[in-house]
Amino acid sequence: MSRIAYFGPQGTFTEQAARTFGEATLVPVETVPLVLAAVRAGEVDAGCVPVENSVEGAVTATMDSLAEDSPLVAVAEALLPVRFSILVREGVKHEDIKTVASHPHALAQVRDWVATNLPNAVPVATTSTASAAVHVHDGEFDAAVSAPVAVLHYPLVELATDVADVDNAVTRFLLLRRPGKPPEPTGTDRTSLFVVIAHDEPGSLAGTLSELALRGINLSRIESRPMRGRFGEYRFYLDFDGHVSEPRIADALAALHRNSREVRFLGSYPKADRTLSAAPPRSTASDYTAALDWVAKVQEGL
Amino acid sequence: MSRIAYFGPQGTFTEQAARTFGEATLVPVETVPLVLAAVRAGEVDAGCVPVENSVEGAVTATMDSLAEDSPLVAVAEALLPVRFSILVREGVKHEDIKTVASHPHALAQVRDWVATNLPNAVPVATTSTASAAVHVHDGEFDAAVSAPVAVLHYPLVELATDVADVDNAVTRFLLLRRPGKPPEPTGTDRTSLFVVIAHDEPGSLAGTLSELALRGINLSRIESRPMRGRFGEYRFYLDFDGHVSEPRIADALAALHRNSREVRFLGSYPKADRTLSAAPPRSTASDYTAALDWVAKVQEGL
Repeated sequence: MSRIAYFGPQGTFTEQAARTFGEATLVPVETVPLVLAAVRAGEVDAGCVPVENSVEGAVTATMDSLAEDSPLVAVAEALLPVRFSILVREGVKHEDIKTVASHPHALAQVRDWVATNLPNAVPVATTSTASAAVHVHDGEFDAAVSAPVAVLHYPLVELATDVADVDNAVTRFLLLRRPGKPPEPTGTDRTSLFVVIAHDEPGSLAGTLSELALRGINLSRIESRPMRGRFGEYRFYLDFDGHVSEPRIADALAALHRNSREVRFLGSYPKADRTLSAAPPRSTASDYTAALDWVAKVQEGL
Repeated sequence: MSRIAYFGPQGTFTEQAARTFGEATLVPVETVPLVLAAVRAGEVDAGCVPVENSVEGAVTATMDSLAEDSPLVAVAEALLPVRFSILVREGVKHEDIKTVASHPHALAQVRDWVATNLPNAVPVATTSTASAAVHVHDGEFDAAVSAPVAVLHYPLVELATDVADVDNAVTRFLLLRRPGKPPEPTGTDRTSLFVVIAHDEPGSLAGTLSELALRGINLSRIESRPMRGRFGEYRFYLDFDGHVSEPRIADALAALHRNSREVRFLGSYPKADRTLSAAPPRSTASDYTAALDWVAKVQEGL
């Protein structure tokens, strides 16, 4: 069975994300850099880490390591709704709860719910949503604001589930491996990469994005990232629809390679939301084949 | 004296940022949304909140509120190095320290330092770097990993200063006011805005950035932000050099207004790093004047 390291401890949202990737032995690891180091060293087959809007932080650590340390590639992603379970010891009732523990970001996201439902409870910070459950089990605190998966690990009961002040927040995770052949295209694929461009050419990012637009490639996320110790350059993280095995994506990557200081491929993998990533008219594989055939004929004078 | 609300409590990095904006009465407020609500309601003159790489989180809350709630504009920014002070009670020595308290993100950023210098200390999470100092003062914990400013508020002493595992991390803050005339241009200015574009037009972001590039405008940050409940559209946060009183910036904003679903102006304000934001040749104010004069003459047949 394959081994997946994840940003732990047991019972966090990251474990919950790791469980969506199928049967595997899950190994909790203390920090994101240590998860990625375990993957690079071959101690595990893959690592699951947050990349966007994590409840427990560490997204910056993920992005910096993926951009700067030895390359890894994503082979799958997971999206989780930010909805918490309130865990208590058996028999504890609303009125018994004097302390509510969790990571400060989780406490901030259930502030209104706690004020309404547990008006006598004092918030207490813990290093993760899961360690709050540990401390509730110990008897140190009365209630934990936890990822739903935490109830599987700790002998606690759910006082409430699906708790969140904001309805539609989601957090995103990637499953990362050492570089190798990407998963097969599914028709609902995403490609991720980092691109480094010169700072003193104001049109260079517009040029990069035009290379995608001209090939009908839909950008779903862009984020500028700081460059450590390299002045005069910018690094951008890009997510876009399509798979590197498609001619339009391969052609766009080649154009970025020609026109950027540096491109780092971060993987082509199925999108968690399963929306289609089909090429629009004039950018399909057969359009590319027909175009190349025509050019070859012109070159031969046929 | 003007009143500035900030994401508190007293003694956080956000207070430290607020102090860089000159003499003012500083008012700690519990969450970022409540800081911005106090500014909107006129209870304070301005609010100071983190916008990028905050040690204590809440950047997502800042961006969502600036994008979606009633408009505010930035009038100044601050950049702070992420370097901590280790605060203890008078007389406490390294070997006495059994617990080290802070926000989980701060604990993660001094992990190596603590392992080397306080090998017997157990990390303990608090809701902010400042509340760690409060608990150390109470005698509950032995050492706090705090913003340097915390020592001004709590009767503690510095066991160490300038502590950080990573050398060059910075965090960024904005000073926000109700909409009004922007501060005068200084020659080292930044303009910030949100732009909403259609999802089904793959070239629309490339087009938006080309409007900036064609006017010699240097983009310093771009980030896609989720749209709540509006499918088929993307929102982007943009920072670029220049001031809205310059013709090239005004001209670019007008072009974005024509070509986007929505543009929200977030202010023109002096850059904290004081790097120049001068227009390059062919985009200066006199170039714009000369060009408009020429067109007017053509229209009149002169």
